[in-house]
Amino acid sequence: MRESYTVQLDDLASDLAQMCHLAEVAMASATRALLTADLALAEETISSREPIDVLAVEWEQKAFALLALQAPVAMDLRSTVSGIHIVADLQRMGGLAIHIAELARRRHPAHVLPPEVEGVFAEMGRVAVDQAHATRAVLLGRDADLAAELQTKDEAMDELHRSLFTLTSAPDWPHGVAAAVDITLLGRFYERFSDHTVEVAKRVIFLVTGEFRPEES
Amino acid sequence: MRESYTVQLDDLASDLAQMCHLAEVAMASATRALLTADLALAEETISSREPIDVLAVEWEQKAFALLALQAPVAMDLRSTVSGIHIVADLQRMGGLAIHIAELARRRHPAHVLPPEVEGVFAEMGRVAVDQAHATRAVLLGRDADLAAELQTKDEAMDELHRSLFTLTSAPDWPHGVAAAVDITLLGRFYERFSDHTVEVAKRVIFLVTGEFRPEES
Repeated sequence: MRESYTVQLDDLASDLAQMCHLAEVAMASATRALLTADLALAEETISSREPIDVLAVEWEQKAFALLALQAPVAMDLRSTVSGIHIVADLQRMGGLAIHIAELARRRHPAHVLPPEVEGVFAEMGRVAVDQAHATRAVLLGRDADLAAELQTKDEAMDELHRSLFTLTSAPDWPHGVAAAVDITLLGRFYERFSDHTVEVAKRVIFLVTGEFRPEES
Repeated sequence: MRESYTVQLDDLASDLAQMCHLAEVAMASATRALLTADLALAEETISSREPIDVLAVEWEQKAFALLALQAPVAMDLRSTVSGIHIVADLQRMGGLAIHIAELARRRHPAHVLPPEVEGVFAEMGRVAVDQAHATRAVLLGRDADLAAELQTKDEAMDELHRSLFTLTSAPDWPHGVAAAVDITLLGRFYERFSDHTVEVAKRVIFLVTGEFRPEES
């Protein structure tokens, strides 16, 4: 029984890492679909919604069964309760990547992005994918130091996000309101994706240290 | 001991209702601050961040202690696990209301909204406040029927949200890009607030019926 309990806990941890990997892949392909107006890739990204949602529901069911049948305490309980938050963050990260792909699909065959913001979004995509990749490592290694480092990484994303406002608010912005509205929404999706990686990092710090920290709201 | 356990569970439930009430109040005052460019009211709304965040952290600590010390099962366990999700949704609802107030503060003494979208935002605010109010009733009464009804209520919000895009995308939109960008972000904040009330409703249905449903992503 004890062994099966440990196996269950390990399963829960590796499922989180797997979900994080799916969110990373979705973000990478959503960004590529956005930058290249690739309809097939946008569709493929959108179709990753179901496996991510299924994993999330299964994860919750397994965690619930573990709490009900094993009544974990201390570190094991923290790990399960943190996981309940983390699974929601990871699912949302997948959802945000899919929102990006949906916008690429909606505007196809047109490109969503005017040429002068393509570089910013390529960089936002790179930062987001890096953050998801580091988040997976944090989850696998339960590494509080790496998690603390990840918390500071969203400064790069915030800076990129601000640069979008500067571009679209310039008096000589030549691409009109509709393009600016799309860019505003996309910028928000990338920024929120990044925020969720930071939330996961905070939860891992709690898991490891037992210290509660208030979430940013 | 048993009595104290029941008291603890009741406390957790009434704390959720209290957080929901704070989110409702924040949304009502944020919308008023937005529509009237009222700096003092915007500041007051923003200052509600701390009590909401404190309640969330305290809630999590109490729930964690309950799981560790009482190992609840069945309905009591569902109620605690659902609460872990719900508290995150409620905290985020407060955060979104605060984002609206922050934008009102940033543009003060100017009004964020051109006159022709004021009516839409007044209505979005009204719908959001109504949804938060109904969510509080759902939480207090654990009412799965009312929760199911709440799930359909965000259609009104989606319709209002779409009408904003129609207005800002019109070829004769006279207020320029910066106003459209603000409107886009604000629209997103109201829509997400509404989404979170639906998430809470889904969780209450799970709590009452034991049926897992995938979250929208």
